[in-house]
Amino acid sequence: MTTVTTMKSISYKNIASPKGFKATGIHCGLKHKKKDLALLVSDVPASVAGVFTTNVFQAAPLLVTKEVVQTTGKMQAIIVNSGNANSCTGKQGMADAYTMQQKTAEKLGINPNLVGVASTGVIGEIMKMEPLLEGIQKLYPIDELEGAMGFAQAIMTTDTVTKNTSYKTTIDGKEVIFAGTAKGSGMIEPNMATMLGFITTDANIESNHLQAALKSITDVTFNSITVDGDTSTNDMVVVMANGLAENNTLTPDHPEWESFVQTLHAVSQDLAKMIAKDGEGATKLIEVEVQGAATDEEARKVAKTVVGSPLVKTAIFGSDANWGRIIAAVGRSGAKFDPNEVKIKIGDANLVEKGEPIPFSEEDLFNYLKQHEVKITVELNQGDGQGLAWGCDLTYDYVQINATYRS
Amino acid sequence: MTTVTTMKSISYKNIASPKGFKATGIHCGLKHKKKDLALLVSDVPASVAGVFTTNVFQAAPLLVTKEVVQTTGKMQAIIVNSGNANSCTGKQGMADAYTMQQKTAEKLGINPNLVGVASTGVIGEIMKMEPLLEGIQKLYPIDELEGAMGFAQAIMTTDTVTKNTSYKTTIDGKEVIFAGTAKGSGMIEPNMATMLGFITTDANIESNHLQAALKSITDVTFNSITVDGDTSTNDMVVVMANGLAENNTLTPDHPEWESFVQTLHAVSQDLAKMIAKDGEGATKLIEVEVQGAATDEEARKVAKTVVGSPLVKTAIFGSDANWGRIIAAVGRSGAKFDPNEVKIKIGDANLVEKGEPIPFSEEDLFNYLKQHEVKITVELNQGDGQGLAWGCDLTYDYVQINATYRS
Repeated sequence: MTTVTTMKSISYKNIASPKGFKATGIHCGLKHKKKDLALLVSDVPASVAGVFTTNVFQAAPLLVTKEVVQTTGKMQAIIVNSGNANSCTGKQGMADAYTMQQKTAEKLGINPNLVGVASTGVIGEIMKMEPLLEGIQKLYPIDELEGAMGFAQAIMTTDTVTKNTSYKTTIDGKEVIFAGTAKGSGMIEPNMATMLGFITTDANIESNHLQAALKSITDVTFNSITVDGDTSTNDMVVVMANGLAENNTLTPDHPEWESFVQTLHAVSQDLAKMIAKDGEGATKLIEVEVQGAATDEEARKVAKTVVGSPLVKTAIFGSDANWGRIIAAVGRSGAKFDPNEVKIKIGDANLVEKGEPIPFSEEDLFNYLKQHEVKITVELNQGDGQGLAWGCDLTYDYVQINATYRS
Repeated sequence: MTTVTTMKSISYKNIASPKGFKATGIHCGLKHKKKDLALLVSDVPASVAGVFTTNVFQAAPLLVTKEVVQTTGKMQAIIVNSGNANSCTGKQGMADAYTMQQKTAEKLGINPNLVGVASTGVIGEIMKMEPLLEGIQKLYPIDELEGAMGFAQAIMTTDTVTKNTSYKTTIDGKEVIFAGTAKGSGMIEPNMATMLGFITTDANIESNHLQAALKSITDVTFNSITVDGDTSTNDMVVVMANGLAENNTLTPDHPEWESFVQTLHAVSQDLAKMIAKDGEGATKLIEVEVQGAATDEEARKVAKTVVGSPLVKTAIFGSDANWGRIIAAVGRSGAKFDPNEVKIKIGDANLVEKGEPIPFSEEDLFNYLKQHEVKITVELNQGDGQGLAWGCDLTYDYVQINATYRS
């Protein structure tokens, strides 16, 4: 991709900032105290694109939203709850997800097939519909920061911080705003793990092209993070583009198509990294860059294997420059390469060259590893393939959170 | 396999019990205090079979042992150290491994190409050869329990217990003894992870048939355990059969061939389960049985995915019957099945049938999960494939051990 100068990161916008979007989040009673019900609405039906979990078990709300995305290509609102995943809940679960869709549509006075549904939380428990339906009646989305923050909080499970990002770009001379919010933070691994991502933009684009743009960047963003290797039954990223920026309709032939895709890429990558950094119990973001692989795909495979290795993750938690574990992970990744050509760096320190260890300052590296963002670089010297992956360290808190999740 | 009645588990034998085997283990100085150097010897050259790590990075000692196994098919002794893996140590590492082989051969007065070498410990550090070579001079293997226990202790890294098992069977009217010892306990995952296994028997068999027997049971034993998904650069399982039981040479046509294979299987499965149970920081052995898969291979894949899931492992550590995590792992395993046909049990309690949750007593299940051995059963209802996998829970101690391993 060539750099497009009009794209600009802006920190002060939110998912309700693109023209015509409103959001809110409240406590309805699925959780003890915290917010657990959220709504995102566009003034007009928006083109929609979505990517969904590859798990064979797919939660009821996910099936409902998939249906909206795949059949109409338009979405005007999405209702989201935390506290219960409505997954493996059989026919009752499907009925409940459709009821959520129906009641939200009635409340908003729109067609149910314009309403998506998302849920996150414990698997296998029937949804408490009474507080949820009462909650839907209490939702008043607004186009202000407060509404977007309420939404971001209400979709959280074990997340410790809300995750938001925004960008603007110019298309056909019109300012186009992009914003995204997401939640993690366990069961995160390739192919849409326990992750919910919502991206809004006022760009004007048809849903088939929006879907193509989202698909083209999913592998290098949302599918390039891992927290624990587990893939959830619920997770999805949905992009809504309502066209209110009034640019000419975007297609791959549009002169500013790349600008659109790059901005979507930037929003997605920001959200993905925030999810990785806020992995359950995490204290550090780990970025692994692989260069010189046979293909980009192989590079990403190596990067993900390294960033997902429990032994690498615990070593980094302990600020221990135990690069042998990086080597071991590279070696079992399934990628083909000559072990005698491998180069490994942590931060700026060269640790391995031509497959052999080289001396380094333990003290310098210890100080580097104590930081909250750690970079590992692997050079395979096999070709031009490159890739990035993000993850987090494995800590006492991960065990604590997950040994007691339902309690 | 049909049951062979002559096979009998015997607890009082050890790797020095089959006729003509001797063992020892001492402290030579690679570790601070603990034993770190071990030797296993047969009075006569033994037929040998081995399976080795699939990691692209292969440690120097492993390459030396592989050469012995693959070129001569005979081994008379194996020298093993802990404290240093001699992996990613380049040309110096290869030279050091050959020196270990050579000096052990000299000490025993045998041909170097009858001597295997194995190492386990930190990757990427050059071996301290001085204490090691002095140590080799101090090795006096004996055919008594003390020698075998010294060996079992000296190969340990973060293992908390020695791992030993023994069986006897009868072939051609002769008593044949089998014994095995192994070490784990981190970097344990498919395909020969950080695991060293040594099996001795006085059976009479050629190395090509011994290799075939070992290969036939590796996938369902050593390759069916996982501690943390990491695969080491060093690990191997070696079987030595010295023929001193004086049975007629075993081949697949021998009427008691199955008896031989089953006994080897039993030794291997015992060692594999002991390694899983003593995984780093583990408090519980988890056994996952998958039935009704399309193939046995697919069944094992599902079983290994479940037993390797960090979320399942932490839930079991917390005695939490969070079966949704089992469902999620089954669903991402890559196996093909209908989610509406799945049945899941923990212990004897049915939790999911036809893909839907069924009520169970939380209290009973909590009490069951507090035990040290936990069984999960998954029925896919797709075919006749079945498989087992073993692993352990994920605990605070795993993090503690691995955040500080090199310190």
